Amino acid sequence: MITSTANHKVKRIAQLNKKASERKREDVFVAEGLKMFLEAPEENLCEVYISENFQFFLNGQEKSGERARKRLEKFGYEEVSEEVFRKMSDTQAPQGILCVVRQLHYRLEDILQGKECPLILALENLQDPGNLGTILRTGEGAGVCGVVMSRNTTDIYNPKVIRATMGSIYRMPFCYAENLGEAVRGMKNAGIRVFAAHLNGKINYDGCDYCRPSAFLIGNEGKGLTEEMAALADSYVKIPMEGEVESLNAAIASALLVFEAARQRRGAE
Amino acid sequence: MITSTANHKVKRIAQLNKKASERKREDVFVAEGLKMFLEAPEENLCEVYISENFQFFLNGQEKSGERARKRLEKFGYEEVSEEVFRKMSDTQAPQGILCVVRQLHYRLEDILQGKECPLILALENLQDPGNLGTILRTGEGAGVCGVVMSRNTTDIYNPKVIRATMGSIYRMPFCYAENLGEAVRGMKNAGIRVFAAHLNGKINYDGCDYCRPSAFLIGNEGKGLTEEMAALADSYVKIPMEGEVESLNAAIASALLVFEAARQRRGAE
Repeated sequence: MITSTANHKVKRIAQLNKKASERKREDVFVAEGLKMFLEAPEENLCEVYISENFQFFLNGQEKSGERARKRLEKFGYEEVSEEVFRKMSDTQAPQGILCVVRQLHYRLEDILQGKECPLILALENLQDPGNLGTILRTGEGAGVCGVVMSRNTTDIYNPKVIRATMGSIYRMPFCYAENLGEAVRGMKNAGIRVFAAHLNGKINYDGCDYCRPSAFLIGNEGKGLTEEMAALADSYVKIPMEGEVESLNAAIASALLVFEAARQRRGAE
Repeated sequence: MITSTANHKVKRIAQLNKKASERKREDVFVAEGLKMFLEAPEENLCEVYISENFQFFLNGQEKSGERARKRLEKFGYEEVSEEVFRKMSDTQAPQGILCVVRQLHYRLEDILQGKECPLILALENLQDPGNLGTILRTGEGAGVCGVVMSRNTTDIYNPKVIRATMGSIYRMPFCYAENLGEAVRGMKNAGIRVFAAHLNGKINYDGCDYCRPSAFLIGNEGKGLTEEMAALADSYVKIPMEGEVESLNAAIASALLVFEAARQRRGAE
């Protein structure tokens, strides 16, 4: 059992939580909590750490407690003291389990390949980790087949993003485009219609047809889409608003668009 | 100019940011940032603090800079050093303006009164301040006429909530119900149909009619609605989901429901 916060493994996990550069260098990320441990693809799971009291936490879990025990037994783990775990954890009330997971790599071609009717989210410079994680989770729920991000989007392996995905990080394909504009042009060439959520939109978001291959462009939280990116859209759509609200949160706007697409696609079946 | 972080006003603001009990005792809350200052109702604005460098920040703002200068001149303000402002601020990159605002008080009767076709959100034990703030912002955008919360819902005057509302805190009526069940029964007696977003829902959320007076019950992030609360619903609705997503974030689920209601109500006009 590791009992010293000076232990090099402890310091390394803390660094992996803090620094995107360290995560990139090692090609891993840290996923914390029972759900994130249980859902991690076996082939990507590198290391597991549990706190001394994690067994007590597990006793309070019904089905997932049993599954977790089996997985821990099969995979092996390292135990650390409560104090050490708090040092390794990125959360205020840690459950007492975290794992190091190998990063997932997809290319735009992988995301599009074999999809009969792709539904894509293209994110430009999103900065809020909670928003990005929520977008992955919501996107999976709506049947989005992949998320393409500009280089300046916040790091998807940030622990706050990972947490907000609630496991979708393992299942939703994503990639950072060296040049998002080029990626979007690539989608258009592949027959995907590109919609931009835009304050200048004339058509209501529920007035467009998303039953064909579609992509939504979502801009930065404060600044929206850059002009260059907005110019690539085939249509501008707006979410009509009451009151004095100027714009919606980026994750909320994304959700309304992708679930409207899902609604139309269900109706068209 | 206040230059000491030991100044009693500085300490008081820090306490107001931290403690719901202090906010309640003084019947005020702290609203930070240019937008929150500009949109604060004049009659509720108590005090304004700006940092030494706030003028430079204002120079970078176009229209709102001018409006802010006029409002500051009219209302008066106290200047503090950069270091002191950082102590008073709840954000990592403060804009350099914050104000103390008198709390807003509504009763359920106020929320329902005079509304031809109310649309209400009833929140049970929501804990995430970001979610609560986003729900207010999204709700205003969708034409919700009020948000009713259980006593155990996170404090709406928490600075993280205030920030996430992006100003909707000033315009969206809300109240804490001593007993949320009773409040919901009151709504039902007033002819409001009550829908619960529920994993056991049989009807898709877009298959119900929200053109009549409607309320949505939204449960706690981890646990969902309590059985007592769910039992009060006239209908359970579900948001159909792809992939392995078990549930959506509470703010996302709220957004899908209230914007579906808005969509139907637009269509029915």
